Amino acid sequence: MKINGKPYRTIWLAKDGWSIEVIEQTKLPHRLETIGLKSAEDCARAIKSMQVRGAPLIGACAAYGLAMALRQDPSDAHLTRTIAFLAEQRPTAINLRWALEEMRRAVVERPPNDRAAAAYRRAADLCDDDVETCRRIGVHGLEILKAIAARKKPGDPVNILTHCNAGWIACVDWGTATSPIYQAHDASLKVHVWVDETRPRIQGAALTAFELGAHGVPHTIIVDNAGGHLMQHGLVDLCIVGTDRVTANGDVANKIGTYLKALAAKDNNVPFYVALPHSTIDWMLDDGMTIPIEQRSADEVLKMTGRLPDGSIATVEIAAPGSPARNDGFDVTPARLVTGLITERGVCEASREGLAGLYPERRAS
Amino acid sequence: MKINGKPYRTIWLAKDGWSIEVIEQTKLPHRLETIGLKSAEDCARAIKSMQVRGAPLIGACAAYGLAMALRQDPSDAHLTRTIAFLAEQRPTAINLRWALEEMRRAVVERPPNDRAAAAYRRAADLCDDDVETCRRIGVHGLEILKAIAARKKPGDPVNILTHCNAGWIACVDWGTATSPIYQAHDASLKVHVWVDETRPRIQGAALTAFELGAHGVPHTIIVDNAGGHLMQHGLVDLCIVGTDRVTANGDVANKIGTYLKALAAKDNNVPFYVALPHSTIDWMLDDGMTIPIEQRSADEVLKMTGRLPDGSIATVEIAAPGSPARNDGFDVTPARLVTGLITERGVCEASREGLAGLYPERRAS
Repeated sequence: MKINGKPYRTIWLAKDGWSIEVIEQTKLPHRLETIGLKSAEDCARAIKSMQVRGAPLIGACAAYGLAMALRQDPSDAHLTRTIAFLAEQRPTAINLRWALEEMRRAVVERPPNDRAAAAYRRAADLCDDDVETCRRIGVHGLEILKAIAARKKPGDPVNILTHCNAGWIACVDWGTATSPIYQAHDASLKVHVWVDETRPRIQGAALTAFELGAHGVPHTIIVDNAGGHLMQHGLVDLCIVGTDRVTANGDVANKIGTYLKALAAKDNNVPFYVALPHSTIDWMLDDGMTIPIEQRSADEVLKMTGRLPDGSIATVEIAAPGSPARNDGFDVTPARLVTGLITERGVCEASREGLAGLYPERRAS
Repeated sequence: MKINGKPYRTIWLAKDGWSIEVIEQTKLPHRLETIGLKSAEDCARAIKSMQVRGAPLIGACAAYGLAMALRQDPSDAHLTRTIAFLAEQRPTAINLRWALEEMRRAVVERPPNDRAAAAYRRAADLCDDDVETCRRIGVHGLEILKAIAARKKPGDPVNILTHCNAGWIACVDWGTATSPIYQAHDASLKVHVWVDETRPRIQGAALTAFELGAHGVPHTIIVDNAGGHLMQHGLVDLCIVGTDRVTANGDVANKIGTYLKALAAKDNNVPFYVALPHSTIDWMLDDGMTIPIEQRSADEVLKMTGRLPDGSIATVEIAAPGSPARNDGFDVTPARLVTGLITERGVCEASREGLAGLYPERRAS
């Protein structure tokens, strides 16, 4: 999508032809900077520190990290070690493991001296595939927005609430939850987005608001506490969120707080959709409560970073001195609260049957 | 309650015998400062800017503000004008209007030159009554905590989730939601409090954590997004929150986000209690959706204040530059989601019948 009129992806091959450059997401929205990643270790550090984040994007970044590792040492031992090392950086998003498995399959049968080139080709394909997948999610999601718009007073915008950032900046381009929104906006369908701030790391206020603003989509930041109240007053037409892992039965792991919005949507008859590529589906798990939930640093709760009046960036301690904090990164929204899953193949019910209908090749034997 | 071993109230008559001093709550938790308020205008400004906040406390502060106004000019016109002026500072909390009506009744039949002295007596009584009312709320709430503790493994703490600050610092002493917690702690019943941060003004992380820490009560700060996840995993035994207004049918207005926690509590069979003094009941309203909801500044959402590493206080802009924000101060939790109301007269169902049982003198004729 565009930043100040210039088209961007979140990740691209550097001019040297083998290292990658990415948008440094911990600097957003205060600074738009890119950084170079020149090894699997660099990629791991960027994923762990969330300089690179978003379930689809961390898969893409890890894929290139593996390619760089194979360029240095294409042995079986190094392949296995690097995959394990990259996979452990973030536990909840399944895309990371999916992308690394795709990479392994692309190289493991090849002779060592072919592996690096094959890995780079596969990593590039994964990125291009992600763009096309997200575009298709948008095509299917747009139909939902059009149907809601048709029931509203002409000229009134469709009000969409989203949580965290499942935008283009969490993917390679388009985004998952935002793809229908961008396509609606580009097609002159009036939309307005309620952007949940998404504490503790405020990916909503920092990233979703940034990318919607940069592309010109009308939006309003709200605190995470506000969505239920807005739904009670008829100010939300639907919710669309992304996800880090969907189980085979349709349970949805996503950024902490998603479950609360799904409860409020149910209580107010507001449709609650989850947008995802097939790579986010964990066909091995049948119960969302078994998804590992990342425990993150208390500092993310106790401190906030922002711009001082002079434009410099500062971090302040906001809470009562000495009070401890707990920081669960994700929660699980039970399938019963999800109106539908928007995938690149279409929209389905959040259930085993719904998913099997769209992905018959994955139906359990 | 105590701060560093020293007993405090939130509001007291100054040595001059006519002005008041209060804890400056916008400086907490970074600085413990008191300020003097010497006129109704001072009190109004302190209430509006939330230097003084919490439904019971703003009632007490307004009562003294009226007494100071009558000391200057005890005329009927000035009485009427000052009551209207003070009442309009915060629209949602009913206690403010209740306290001003109590004050009016205490002085209006008196000759003008008796009014100031009567007003000071009534304001002091309102403060003392609030302390006793909150203490009794704690006595009744403690029984609930004891019953839950009896069903837990001996030695395991009772885990209480609270939202915003309905602590002693929101009242004159004890607090409403915190009063059962302090009484349990003082009686050596093991408790642990999950403190919702409570964006945008983080009264949980700043005030509830501060006062629990200062009194030695074990607690952990969480972001507002986390409570549902903790309930799903059995880590919350009950919720207790305060309220700014309860309608005659038991609907509860409280800080934005309370409704989301009540939904999660219902979905996980976690009891959800609301603690309140009788002065918080609005007998004139039958539907929570008709309670006026204060709209506050977008800056509260877009900026955060805290301590820099050198100890100085700074405010940083946290969100994407140029993105707008909306800031509803309160939401309404429907009575159907409330397990019980904890009042100074005991615990009742959140319903017309429940309230009428405890307050038969207010039963509609």
